[in-house]
Amino acid sequence: MGTLGPAMSIEALRERMAELSDLTALGRLAAWDQRTMMPPAGAPGRGEQLATLERLAHERATADEVGAWLDHLEAADLNGIDAEIVRIARRDFDRARRVPGELAAEIERASSEGQDVWQAARAASDFAAFAPALRRNVDLAREYAACFDDGLRPYDALLADYDFGLEAARLQDVFGELAEQLVPLVAEAPDGPPPVGAPVAAQRAAVPAVLARIGVADDGWRLDDAAHPFSVGIGRADSRVTTRYEDGDLLSVIAAMHEFGHALYERQVAPELSRTNLGSGTSMAMHESQSKLWENHVGRHPAFAPVLAEAFAAGGFPVEPATLHAALVAVRPSLIRVSADPVSYPLHIVLRFELELALIEGGLDVADLPAAWNDGMRRLLGIEVPEDAAGVLQDTHWAAGAFGYFPSYALGCLIAAQLWEALERDAGPQDEALARADVTAIRNWLAEHVHTHGRLYDTEPLVERATGRGMEAAPFLRHARSLVGASGSCSGRG
Amino acid sequence: MGTLGPAMSIEALRERMAELSDLTALGRLAAWDQRTMMPPAGAPGRGEQLATLERLAHERATADEVGAWLDHLEAADLNGIDAEIVRIARRDFDRARRVPGELAAEIERASSEGQDVWQAARAASDFAAFAPALRRNVDLAREYAACFDDGLRPYDALLADYDFGLEAARLQDVFGELAEQLVPLVAEAPDGPPPVGAPVAAQRAAVPAVLARIGVADDGWRLDDAAHPFSVGIGRADSRVTTRYEDGDLLSVIAAMHEFGHALYERQVAPELSRTNLGSGTSMAMHESQSKLWENHVGRHPAFAPVLAEAFAAGGFPVEPATLHAALVAVRPSLIRVSADPVSYPLHIVLRFELELALIEGGLDVADLPAAWNDGMRRLLGIEVPEDAAGVLQDTHWAAGAFGYFPSYALGCLIAAQLWEALERDAGPQDEALARADVTAIRNWLAEHVHTHGRLYDTEPLVERATGRGMEAAPFLRHARSLVGASGSCSGRG
Repeated sequence: MGTLGPAMSIEALRERMAELSDLTALGRLAAWDQRTMMPPAGAPGRGEQLATLERLAHERATADEVGAWLDHLEAADLNGIDAEIVRIARRDFDRARRVPGELAAEIERASSEGQDVWQAARAASDFAAFAPALRRNVDLAREYAACFDDGLRPYDALLADYDFGLEAARLQDVFGELAEQLVPLVAEAPDGPPPVGAPVAAQRAAVPAVLARIGVADDGWRLDDAAHPFSVGIGRADSRVTTRYEDGDLLSVIAAMHEFGHALYERQVAPELSRTNLGSGTSMAMHESQSKLWENHVGRHPAFAPVLAEAFAAGGFPVEPATLHAALVAVRPSLIRVSADPVSYPLHIVLRFELELALIEGGLDVADLPAAWNDGMRRLLGIEVPEDAAGVLQDTHWAAGAFGYFPSYALGCLIAAQLWEALERDAGPQDEALARADVTAIRNWLAEHVHTHGRLYDTEPLVERATGRGMEAAPFLRHARSLVGASGSCSGRG
Repeated sequence: MGTLGPAMSIEALRERMAELSDLTALGRLAAWDQRTMMPPAGAPGRGEQLATLERLAHERATADEVGAWLDHLEAADLNGIDAEIVRIARRDFDRARRVPGELAAEIERASSEGQDVWQAARAASDFAAFAPALRRNVDLAREYAACFDDGLRPYDALLADYDFGLEAARLQDVFGELAEQLVPLVAEAPDGPPPVGAPVAAQRAAVPAVLARIGVADDGWRLDDAAHPFSVGIGRADSRVTTRYEDGDLLSVIAAMHEFGHALYERQVAPELSRTNLGSGTSMAMHESQSKLWENHVGRHPAFAPVLAEAFAAGGFPVEPATLHAALVAVRPSLIRVSADPVSYPLHIVLRFELELALIEGGLDVADLPAAWNDGMRRLLGIEVPEDAAGVLQDTHWAAGAFGYFPSYALGCLIAAQLWEALERDAGPQDEALARADVTAIRNWLAEHVHTHGRLYDTEPLVERATGRGMEAAPFLRHARSLVGASGSCSGRG
C-alpha cells in the first residue's frame, strides 16, 4: 500500500470512508430496530451483531493502510473537499489509534457492568452499592484521557469525543454567566398553570399531523413509538423519528419535534459530503442545538400554538392555543432532568458538568458525590433531594462511563437560542410564517448556515460562522425571560 | 498467521465464522427492513449499504489467513463439531475463491441489469427485448460453472450453490417419475369448488391467531405485511414472518404458515452450532421442504380445517371447515406458478428445470425458449399460453441469472411429503392432535430429524437419515391423490 500515489490514495481513503459510513448506517438500523421492532428474545443476538459490527468498523478505521494513505496525502497538495477529508480522517485515525485495544475493551466492559449495577442501585436508591462501579469508570476515564498527552486537561480530552475543540475553561465561563442569571430567574418565576392533559388517542393523531406540516413526508420518513424517544438517519433520505405517548401529557409532540430537529440536520448535509467522513452533524452540542431549536423556538413559539391546538382538536381534544402554550412553557423546577421545564433545564446540566469535572480532575471523591449533588440542587434549583434514586442516581451516563457528554444538552439550548436570533435577524421575524406552519425560511436558513457544512467546522467555529459571535448565554436568557413572561401572564388566567 | 498451532487456528476460524454469521444476520435485517419498514426514498442508500456488507463479508470469508487456518486444521486431528466446521469451511472457501472477482462483479451487474430489462419486457410482453439480457446471463452462468472444473456437469456446478451434492441426472429421474404420474392426475382432477373469499379484516384476525396456536409468541417473533411474503431469522431467537392480504382470498394464512416453516427450521438448529458456519438450514430444497410441510401437510390437512375455520369465524367470517378445506385444496391448473394449486404446482417447476438445463448445457437456444415453454405448458398442464408475459416472462429468476434455483421448489414439495409420512410412521397419525392445533409432536420430530443438524448433512443424506430412503416422488403423489379426492368429493357438494 505504501507505493500508491496521491490519486490512488485519495480514492482508497474515500472508499474506506464510504465503507465506514455504510457500516455506521447499518449499526443505526440495528439499534433503531432493537428499540422499536425487535422481539425481546432477540436481544442477546443483537448484542453480538452490534459488537461484531463495532469491532470490524474499528479495525477498518484504524488499519495500517489508512495511516499510509494519510501520510501520502498529507505530503501531496490537496485542496477542496479532499483536503478536508484528509484533515478529519487524520484526526479520527490518531484519536482511535492512541487508545490501546485492552483499555478500550476494559472501558467497554466497565460500561456494560456499570449500567447493570446502576440499575439495581437506582431501584434500591442505594448509592453505596453503585460507588465502586462509578469509581472504576472514573479511573478508566482518567486513564483514557491520559492517552491524549498533547497538553489537554483530562476533562478536555474526554469532551473532545463529543465536541471536539471545546474546553472545560470555556464551558465554565459560559455556564457561569448562565447560572448567575438563570438561578434567580427560575427562583422568581411565577407558578405555572395546571398541566394540560391530552388523551393518548389525540396525541397519536396530533403528532403525525404536526410533523407533516413541518415537512415529514411518508416517502423518506418514519414515525414510531419508543420508550426513550430518539431519531436516526439511515442514509440521508431515510429518517426515523420516535416519540413516547403518555396519557394526560403534551410532550409526545414536543419530543417528536425535538427528534425531527436531529433528523433534519442529517438530511440537509451537502450531498457531496455523503458517504465521506464529513457527511454527518459535526458534534453533540450542534446536534442538540438543532433538536432544541425545533423544540423550544418552533414548538414552544406562541405563534405556533394554534397549529398545535388545531392538530389536537382534529384528534378529538379541543384546547385553546393560549392554554396549550402556557402549559408548554410553564416553569416548574423538577428533581428529574428529563422532566424539567425548558427554562430550568440547563441548570440540571450545569450541576452535572461541575460534578463530573470535579470527579475527573481530582477535587471530588466518589463517596462525596451524593452530598455535592444535593447541595447543588439546593443552590441551583432550590430543591431538596429526598433520596438518591431521584438525585445522583437518576441518569445512566456516568454508569456507562460517559463523562463529557452532559454539557452538550445545555450547549444545545444556548446555541439554539443564539441561532434563532441570528435566523430572525437574517430572515425576519417568523411569527406570521409559524402561524401558518410555514417553516420554509427556517429550514433553508439552517441548511445554509449549519447543516450543509457537515463536519467541516467544529462547534464554536460553526456558531461564529452562523451568528457572527462565539457561544454565549445571553440569547438563551432572553428566550427564558420571554417564556417566564408568557407562563406568568397565562398563569393569571389559568 | 501461518505460525498458529491448531488450537489457535480453530479459535481464529470459529471467530471468523461467528463474525460472518453476524454480518449475515445484519444483512437479513437490512433486507427485512427494506421490504417491510423502509421509506421508499431509502432504497439507493440501502443498496449501497447492502453492497458494502456483501463485499466486506466476501473479503473476510476468502482472506488468505482463512486458507492458512484451514491448511493447519486439516493436518491436525480434529473431531466432533470442530472437524465439521473445518470440512464445510473448506468447501465454502474453495468455492468462493474459485470465482475470479471480475467475473463475480460482471455476474452481479448482468443480474441487476437483467432484472431491469425483464421488468420492461414483461410489461410489454416482449420476449425479444429480453432475449439479449437472458443470453448474457446464460453465457455468464456457463463461465461461472466452468470455474468448478472438478468433473461436474455445468448445471450441477450451478445447482451446488443452492443444493450442494444434488445432480441434474438425479433430478431427471425423480422429476421424470413425478411428471409421468402427476400429469394425468391433474388432467383428470374434477373441477374444484368456487373459491372462498374472506375479507381482509377477517384474514388479519385469523393469521396471527393461527400462528399463535402453532407456536408463534410475541417475545421471539414478528408478523408483518410484505408484497412478496418471506421470512428471516435474525439470530436464532428473532424470527420474522410476513404475509400478504388480498380481499376475497384465503392464502394469507397459508403463506404465513409456509413462512413459519422456514423460520422454525432456523430456530431449531442445535444451539451449539449457533454462530458457526453450520448454524443454518442446509439447502434450499430442505428449507422449502419445511415451508411446504407446514403449508401442505398442516395448513391443508383436513383435520386442521376446523382450527382455521374457528380463526376466521373469530375474525367475523364464519365458514364451514369442509368448505374452507375444499377451497384450499382445489385443483385448478394455472398459467402462473405463484398462483398454482398444491397439486399441479410441481409441474411448473419440472418445466423450468427442463428448460434451464437445456439452456445451460447447450441444447436450447434462447430464441427458441418461448416456443419450448408454450409446448411444455401444453404437455404438462394442458394449458395454452396466450402471451409471453403470462408465460416465459413471468418469473424473475432467469433475469437475475439464477439457474439451478427452481428445482428446490418442487423438491421441497416432494421432501415434505416424504418427511410427513416418516413423521406419522414414527409419531403416529396426527389427525387428532391437529384438530386441537397441537403441533408439539410435529415440531419435536422435525427438530430431532431435520432441524437440529444445521448444515451437518446435505440434502439427500439428510432425507435418508430422516426417512430411511433417498428422495422419491411416491409420497408426494400419494398426498396429491388424497387432495384430489378431497377436492372432488367436496366439489360435488359445492
